[in-house]
Amino acid sequence: MTPRARDRERRDLGQQIEGRRAVRELLTAGTRQVHEVLVSADDDDLVPLAEAAHARVRRVPPDQLERRARTDAPQGVVAFAAPIEPIDIDMLLGDPSAFLVALDGVTDPQNLGAVMRTAETCGATGIVVPRHRAVGLTPTVAKAAAGAVEHLPVAFVSGIASLLERAARARLWCVGLDAGGDVSVFDLPVADQPLVLVLGAEGRGLSRLVRARCDLVAAIPMFGSIASLNVSAAAAIACAEIARRRAQ
Amino acid sequence: MTPRARDRERRDLGQQIEGRRAVRELLTAGTRQVHEVLVSADDDDLVPLAEAAHARVRRVPPDQLERRARTDAPQGVVAFAAPIEPIDIDMLLGDPSAFLVALDGVTDPQNLGAVMRTAETCGATGIVVPRHRAVGLTPTVAKAAAGAVEHLPVAFVSGIASLLERAARARLWCVGLDAGGDVSVFDLPVADQPLVLVLGAEGRGLSRLVRARCDLVAAIPMFGSIASLNVSAAAAIACAEIARRRAQ
Repeated sequence: MTPRARDRERRDLGQQIEGRRAVRELLTAGTRQVHEVLVSADDDDLVPLAEAAHARVRRVPPDQLERRARTDAPQGVVAFAAPIEPIDIDMLLGDPSAFLVALDGVTDPQNLGAVMRTAETCGATGIVVPRHRAVGLTPTVAKAAAGAVEHLPVAFVSGIASLLERAARARLWCVGLDAGGDVSVFDLPVADQPLVLVLGAEGRGLSRLVRARCDLVAAIPMFGSIASLNVSAAAAIACAEIARRRAQ
Repeated sequence: MTPRARDRERRDLGQQIEGRRAVRELLTAGTRQVHEVLVSADDDDLVPLAEAAHARVRRVPPDQLERRARTDAPQGVVAFAAPIEPIDIDMLLGDPSAFLVALDGVTDPQNLGAVMRTAETCGATGIVVPRHRAVGLTPTVAKAAAGAVEHLPVAFVSGIASLLERAARARLWCVGLDAGGDVSVFDLPVADQPLVLVLGAEGRGLSRLVRARCDLVAAIPMFGSIASLNVSAAAAIACAEIARRRAQ
């Protein structure tokens, strides 16, 4: 990636949205202004939604749409919108029913988007992303998130280790998720209390400092021959279990 | 995709494996012969494993390795092995502790691989894939499966609707997973009994005939604003819940 492309990624706050689910949710959520929607099919069923959202609609040939797209498969639609406003981390920490998901070095945009989608459906109250080490809300992230970027508050922080210090002061439980964890995620004693669930990077897991600052580190029980889950599958299992326990 | 590329995809039975996790598992599982391993780094730590597996090792320049690769990111290694032998579906259905995962029209190779990885770690006893409508065990599937293709038995069937008839005769419970399901996956009465879990296609869900043949259709409770999970996240949540119940 060129330095310029990296700069652009860091500034990405969901201004460009591609893919049918993500654009549909952008248009219907009504949480921010949509400037323009490019479609390649005349009778695209997103057009009435775009018009209802007061967005300018432009029908463009498929090759022109592909050129404007930044994902591999825009599915015939590219939208441009006002940037998403990140939330202040103190707002998230002050919520007495906080259920935060924090990413310790997850850099793959597909994984970030997939985690946002899952966390949103599980009732998470926010996602926390390191400002400098992770990707921004790029078109790829937003497409994988399938609309979750419109609803799930996002906070950027300088680092996850310092986040955990602040979370502890705010009386949240800091729960790491790691294959080497010492309690089963299905026996999490604090699942229904205010907490921040910390997910480690693909492959490397939680960083040492982050792990040391967790009140407990949970693992997903493994019943097969291979030793690890993809971070987005692990996030899905842990978030769903927390949601299940909170609903009881 | 050209007709020739499609033919090749259908014949794919894991003969070409790329990506570090997938190749490592291929070399250490010892379940099939590995003919050759191409690496681009002289000191690749997979080389001793390849030699121990009696595979021919060839060091090739990165551009040559990229040309042989069929995934976007082979991570410096491409291996060629004997094809995986599919298992007869009757073998899977005859297992008194059967926990099968069947894919009703899941065609995205990343999703197929991700589901295999999750199913294997959750102790599934096999995966069932329609012969004609789904992808084969391509390099992309195998890479996303991160080695699960070496361990999880795979059966190909002519269709999922007829599979469910046979499964019912073999006294397995047929459990569909669908956003419109009528029981929570967390209250599945048959989780610890022999069963086949049927996953629908991304977007469309279960086909009508398949749905009609399920003994019950389970849904994952949703607590947010967006309405659906990615099929691999849904599979992770359902498989982990079945594993949890079986371990009790």
